[in-house]
Amino acid sequence: MVSTSSQTLVNGRATAQVAALDRGLSYGDGVFRTLRVDGGRPCWWGEHLDKLKEDCRRLGLACPPPAVWEQDLGRLDLPASGVVRLTVTRGEAPRGYAPPPHSQSTRIVTVWPHEHAPLSEEGITARVCHLRLGHQPALAGVKHLNRLENVLARAEWQDADIREGILLDQPGQVVGGVMSNLFLWHGGRLRTPRLDKCGVAGVARARLMAAATRAGYRVEETELTLGDVYAADELFFTNSLILLWRVARLENRSWGTPVVSQALWELLHA
Amino acid sequence: MVSTSSQTLVNGRATAQVAALDRGLSYGDGVFRTLRVDGGRPCWWGEHLDKLKEDCRRLGLACPPPAVWEQDLGRLDLPASGVVRLTVTRGEAPRGYAPPPHSQSTRIVTVWPHEHAPLSEEGITARVCHLRLGHQPALAGVKHLNRLENVLARAEWQDADIREGILLDQPGQVVGGVMSNLFLWHGGRLRTPRLDKCGVAGVARARLMAAATRAGYRVEETELTLGDVYAADELFFTNSLILLWRVARLENRSWGTPVVSQALWELLHA
Repeated sequence: MVSTSSQTLVNGRATAQVAALDRGLSYGDGVFRTLRVDGGRPCWWGEHLDKLKEDCRRLGLACPPPAVWEQDLGRLDLPASGVVRLTVTRGEAPRGYAPPPHSQSTRIVTVWPHEHAPLSEEGITARVCHLRLGHQPALAGVKHLNRLENVLARAEWQDADIREGILLDQPGQVVGGVMSNLFLWHGGRLRTPRLDKCGVAGVARARLMAAATRAGYRVEETELTLGDVYAADELFFTNSLILLWRVARLENRSWGTPVVSQALWELLHA
Repeated sequence: MVSTSSQTLVNGRATAQVAALDRGLSYGDGVFRTLRVDGGRPCWWGEHLDKLKEDCRRLGLACPPPAVWEQDLGRLDLPASGVVRLTVTRGEAPRGYAPPPHSQSTRIVTVWPHEHAPLSEEGITARVCHLRLGHQPALAGVKHLNRLENVLARAEWQDADIREGILLDQPGQVVGGVMSNLFLWHGGRLRTPRLDKCGVAGVARARLMAAATRAGYRVEETELTLGDVYAADELFFTNSLILLWRVARLENRSWGTPVVSQALWELLHA
């Protein structure tokens, strides 16, 4: 049986409720992952669990082991095509920022059915966001639950034709997309912003960098300006759900027939 | 009857549970207030509701009107001495950073019994935190649910004798305490950091600035360095629960008999 609406487990129990005093809600004290489900199976499972564990380590959170997550998934009806969200919080606790010495993490698994779009031949329209990300090296790269900057940036537009926004940091360096990472192809090199001051380092980004390197592309993590973005030969966003979106239009700039986007999409889709 | 443990209402219902898909948990998409209860009544009620409304406006959140909060409080057993937390989130929603066009806010009220300490004659011990706050003018001053910086800063020490930590921003300017605002008394002036780039502008801070101005003190919101802090004649933290804590020791610096702390505490306690 395939469910048509979301299903949720909290600490392995079939419930859509969490404690009102969970630190995930009180302070955004936790991390999460969003995975693509294809053919009834979560994609890039090992990489996502590795990243979840690493993000938990960054916050000093206990991360449930893979077997526990796999047991949870086994109890849900995974749709043929869908999305899984895994969340770990520092659990229920009384008031106060100090992490309790013996906190019990809360784990939440939610599954939604979702039709993943095929590679867009014509490419997408994007914009540049006004909101600029603050620098916080202690949290840079981590997909934590403090996502108000992303919420405010995404709230800047309602036009459904605009599919993604580019985020800069306070000094004006390019960081990525609101819900994705950004790559540009320029002068025979694949370039993506370094994420040591802010931004989220996605699993799709890591996979694309590794696969492209193996395939012989020159790949660079570097500082990038908006000028570099407009000067690029090709531009694309990646995340675990969309895989890769080629940008056809960004503000007043448009790009013609792509050369490498299709090949890179295939590297990710493999 | 006075309860000895916490009591919670979610949207007016007596439950300690919220939806696992509430955006307050998914993204920290919400704001909160922490109030002191004295003599069975919440202190500075009007100011706290004004600040809650203003913080909701900053995030584009619908804020429940005062009558709704008052109805909630009327249904709880307020302890003689305690704490109330009010939380507003953007409510339950499907995946995605975009705020839903017709979101229904979630409101949460929790009450705890708590004995408030009297003014500490001897003063407290404080430290300087390693974590430095990132600049985010779009969120500066707002008491939102994205509090991981405070959690990480508070996790830096376990020594129960250290009651509070001082937070600097990335360039090294002083912002405040981990859970409080900071004031210093120097050369006959009461000085507190400007909060236009980061930090939380507390109700106790606003009240103290207004009351001290009325009482004839010179009050300044300004840029402050750690050098200014060490050079101060007196130093204190304020928030709605502690009211005012005088600092007796900060790292290797200590302060002797205070001159204005008692008078300022009385201004706040009035």
